[in-house]
Amino acid sequence: MSLSTEQLAEIEEQRGQTAPTRRAVSEGLEERLFTAHPVLDHGFVRVIDYMGDDAAICQAARVSYGKGTKSVQNDEGLIRYLMRHWHSTPFEMCEIKLHVKLPVFVARQWIRHRTANVNEYSARYSILDREFYIPAPEHVAAQSEINNQGRGDALQGEEAARVLDMLKSDSMRCYDNYEAMISQDGQQGLARELARMNLPANVYTQWYWKVDLHNLFHFLRLRADAHAQYEIRVYAETMCNIVADWVPFAYKAFEDYRLGAASLSAQMVNCVQRMLRGEEVSQENSGLSAREWREFETIVRGN
Amino acid sequence: MSLSTEQLAEIEEQRGQTAPTRRAVSEGLEERLFTAHPVLDHGFVRVIDYMGDDAAICQAARVSYGKGTKSVQNDEGLIRYLMRHWHSTPFEMCEIKLHVKLPVFVARQWIRHRTANVNEYSARYSILDREFYIPAPEHVAAQSEINNQGRGDALQGEEAARVLDMLKSDSMRCYDNYEAMISQDGQQGLARELARMNLPANVYTQWYWKVDLHNLFHFLRLRADAHAQYEIRVYAETMCNIVADWVPFAYKAFEDYRLGAASLSAQMVNCVQRMLRGEEVSQENSGLSAREWREFETIVRGN
Amino acid sequence: MSLSTEQLAEIEEQRGQTAPTRRAVSEGLEERLFTAHPVLDHGFVRVIDYMGDDAAICQAARVSYGKGTKSVQNDEGLIRYLMRHWHSTPFEMCEIKLHVKLPVFVARQWIRHRTANVNEYSARYSILDREFYIPAPEHVAAQSEINNQGRGDALQGEEAARVLDMLKSDSMRCYDNYEAMISQDGQQGLARELARMNLPANVYTQWYWKVDLHNLFHFLRLRADAHAQYEIRVYAETMCNIVADWVPFAYKAFEDYRLGAASLSAQMVNCVQRMLRGEEVSQENSGLSAREWREFETIVRGN
Amino acid sequence: MSLSTEQLAEIEEQRGQTAPTRRAVSEGLEERLFTAHPVLDHGFVRVIDYMGDDAAICQAARVSYGKGTKSVQNDEGLIRYLMRHWHSTPFEMCEIKLHVKLPVFVARQWIRHRTANVNEYSARYSILDREFYIPAPEHVAAQSEINNQGRGDALQGEEAARVLDMLKSDSMRCYDNYEAMISQDGQQGLARELARMNLPANVYTQWYWKVDLHNLFHFLRLRADAHAQYEIRVYAETMCNIVADWVPFAYKAFEDYRLGAASLSAQMVNCVQRMLRGEEVSQENSGLSAREWREFETIVRGN
Repeated sequence: MSLSTEQLAEIEEQRGQTAPTRRAVSEGLEERLFTAHPVLDHGFVRVIDYMGDDAAICQAARVSYGKGTKSVQNDEGLIRYLMRHWHSTPFEMCEIKLHVKLPVFVARQWIRHRTANVNEYSARYSILDREFYIPAPEHVAAQSEINNQGRGDALQGEEAARVLDMLKSDSMRCYDNYEAMISQDGQQGLARELARMNLPANVYTQWYWKVDLHNLFHFLRLRADAHAQYEIRVYAETMCNIVADWVPFAYKAFEDYRLGAASLSAQMVNCVQRMLRGEEVSQENSGLSAREWREFETIVRGN
Repeated sequence: MSLSTEQLAEIEEQRGQTAPTRRAVSEGLEERLFTAHPVLDHGFVRVIDYMGDDAAICQAARVSYGKGTKSVQNDEGLIRYLMRHWHSTPFEMCEIKLHVKLPVFVARQWIRHRTANVNEYSARYSILDREFYIPAPEHVAAQSEINNQGRGDALQGEEAARVLDMLKSDSMRCYDNYEAMISQDGQQGLARELARMNLPANVYTQWYWKVDLHNLFHFLRLRADAHAQYEIRVYAETMCNIVADWVPFAYKAFEDYRLGAASLSAQMVNCVQRMLRGEEVSQENSGLSAREWREFETIVRGN
Repeated sequence: MSLSTEQLAEIEEQRGQTAPTRRAVSEGLEERLFTAHPVLDHGFVRVIDYMGDDAAICQAARVSYGKGTKSVQNDEGLIRYLMRHWHSTPFEMCEIKLHVKLPVFVARQWIRHRTANVNEYSARYSILDREFYIPAPEHVAAQSEINNQGRGDALQGEEAARVLDMLKSDSMRCYDNYEAMISQDGQQGLARELARMNLPANVYTQWYWKVDLHNLFHFLRLRADAHAQYEIRVYAETMCNIVADWVPFAYKAFEDYRLGAASLSAQMVNCVQRMLRGEEVSQENSGLSAREWREFETIVRGN
Repeated sequence: MSLSTEQLAEIEEQRGQTAPTRRAVSEGLEERLFTAHPVLDHGFVRVIDYMGDDAAICQAARVSYGKGTKSVQNDEGLIRYLMRHWHSTPFEMCEIKLHVKLPVFVARQWIRHRTANVNEYSARYSILDREFYIPAPEHVAAQSEINNQGRGDALQGEEAARVLDMLKSDSMRCYDNYEAMISQDGQQGLARELARMNLPANVYTQWYWKVDLHNLFHFLRLRADAHAQYEIRVYAETMCNIVADWVPFAYKAFEDYRLGAASLSAQMVNCVQRMLRGEEVSQENSGLSAREWREFETIVRGN
């Protein structure tokens, strides 16, 4: 991460100011407010604002006049019930606003989640910084041989070195030329809205991103998953830690009923029932395809 | 409005509690938090929570590290520019959560605005109160003779009395029978999810409703308009007052560029240009239909 | 169902007209087009238009130049893979438009699904018909004793008769007064936008409803579920039959991976693993609450 | 545009096939179906499917049993009324699906319109082609001196040549290295999900994009506007021509009440009224800022 002294000072100044509010306050999130949590080589996630806490979920579910919470135990039970039975609207009653710095190719995946509000730094209007994502050596991974959209082990030796060298030198050359094109030193200067097209997809951008808790959980379920690309997964994991401090009951329910849960197809349910009755079930007599059987085995054998 | 002593006490208790926060605070809205602002005979609007203020709109538009505001004058200018040029995303960065009590027929119009989060009091799960909207005599209006979906002057004398009597007696009888059907006194009792179907559309319901400022402005432009049905317009007007206290610059820009603005069609623009060049323009040579011409005259003559 | 002779003639006329198209055509759905499929006592579902078929899902997933389908077997495999791994966007590439007639209390549940387009018959503008949902005797059910938002067995004897009598007489009286209020016979007549508030929630309304296949499946998963209220479930079941004829591969995948599937929490997965290793697992040593244990037993014992 | 012989054959084959349908058919759009309409140097827009026509807008607005259209004149009047009074839901009842090939920096602007369905060609899964947007000389424009997010006149002479040279050589070098990194010839090959980050934003991508007519009009109003960046505006203009053939009445209403219309602020309306009463109105006594006054003059003077 590479915040300037001035940016760090702005952040510290904002952290130093408090004012009284009548609204729901999450102690765990207040502690994190504005601080830049580093991700990848130059990226970060910062919490800018939030609305609601665990109690606000219950308050909305109960359409309450007052705080709407009962005992702490009662509230946790309600939150788990709501999560288990897909009652999503009370979770929509919490909202969070983040400032995120991320490579463009990650931003392009991220933006596919449409139910959120976004303000991106404009490269039509402003000049982008010379900051590019260059993977750490252990993340310079080979194409997966079994999964078209995945990666295998890290590349080694000369091949890895060659890749890193290409990424670095192309980034630098493209940025040099970007600067040369927009320069107004002895020439007119190309329009910024055009010059930006010369920058590769590992250049960093940044945005304000605001989302409700239900849709954030949906994002995290897909992006904190082992099948998500590493470079977006690390953002999702950072956000998981933030959410755990913000709404601890809701986050625990999310872990149990979504992140760590498994969905069994009708045929898989039938297999479990037969196996528990003592039947021998194999792929051949399971009604599952070979691929589904592998997925099933992973779930019920736990490895 | 008819809050119970217990409900009023819950509200007062919540108003009495404050805690420090590092977040943006709107003084104007803190003052209003939790208080029930009465609307119609039993309805209300209460602010439960909010996120952001005028400065937060600028901060998001600038994707800032710190507060992101410059001079107050500069901020107001930016907000007006954003509103004028339909840059809607910075306004989406503010959010408000309301508790609203409203007749079902108003709720049915309201819910057509889809970009919002809702938790409604469940008449499947709970028993509704004996509260029905009965219009004040000056709002018992005749069918409009010129507008199929509008109303004319208030009904007078016996006709008005007859209407009010029917509304009251049908409401009471339907509620009596609702109670009789679900009663478990000497009988099993009908399921609440069925019994509710006997209640007319003037019965009150309530919900938590959460929306971002951009979509709230869209709601208010349509529902605070003179053509909106009176019974939803009074809710919109109450919300206009709330928003004016929350984000005064944004609200002023909304008044100037949306609420009080006029949209001229291509043909109407042409008429204005010709009139300002001194031409005589009448409906016949305007390119406008008779109906459009009336609308045009209202705009450019101001009456 | 109660279509007028004139309405039936309009439907037949439209069914009689065909024109050539280059677009994807679903034979199964063409057969059903415009026909009113009856639901409840006066309701129906009619297919008005559709876009896409099973092949169109594959074509979009492959971003193809031509039809984009390969062998039929290959296509079905791809559709099942997409459904299993929550790749929802290709299913959004199919769209259906329905004309639905339904009681207002069902419409109020239905409209909570926000990702759809709706045009409802306007009771501000027009006069509603004298049509009310009166449950068949076997559906006049008692309040459930174990589930606050559910129903138990049908009421019997005098209690059932009393309920039906109340529903019928209140519906009729409210409608009589609705008519009396808006009548312009010897009086001015109350505005329709006001008079409609006198009608109970079992009155029928109708709308055009358009939705993409992904969001339709989400609707069907929740509303064709055994826990959904009977009166909306019958609409969902009718729509399931329609979708099965429209996109048979996608519907089968939906049945296997959604409708008939089960979601096991992290703790439940652990229980299955232990049980399959031969451990004795009971509620006490399961990590599940009593309620979760009952739900778990239902899944793995199959009853 | 650079379609392969094989792709052109696939398109022609699909254009050659027709089948009868009972659905609404738009003759104008059938003619265009599947054909690639060229945009920029390698891009295109192809219509893949559509739902509805002008009559379908009226049918939905009237919640009709049959076709729901009356006289052609009557239908056009209704469509204009709906557009003028912001009744947007009937326009949502038409839907179109496009296949678009476009540079990544254009795709990044385009995707900000969230109310649409998208399937993008996956550079995680597949290998992108060596196709980059290189502006025609007359579009190699200088940065605007008055508008931070705009462009001025075309660069001339050596400066223009230098820019084009940089864009071309950086594109080619980055693609050469992209190929070298993923190559499995004598090495493992970098994962495609990583290698894509080396490609600059003028590389072409493609997607299937599906949207309803109301949201398409919103897109076109912003992107066919003179202030939109040229490279997205040419796509919008191509789509305007397509829509004009699909729903001619709706498109004409869109031109008159949106594209060619002007929005006057409350203060601007007041200025027009005063000017038409013969008052001398200047910026000083107008209540408008200098910037607003310029915008106002442009509207009412027509230049």
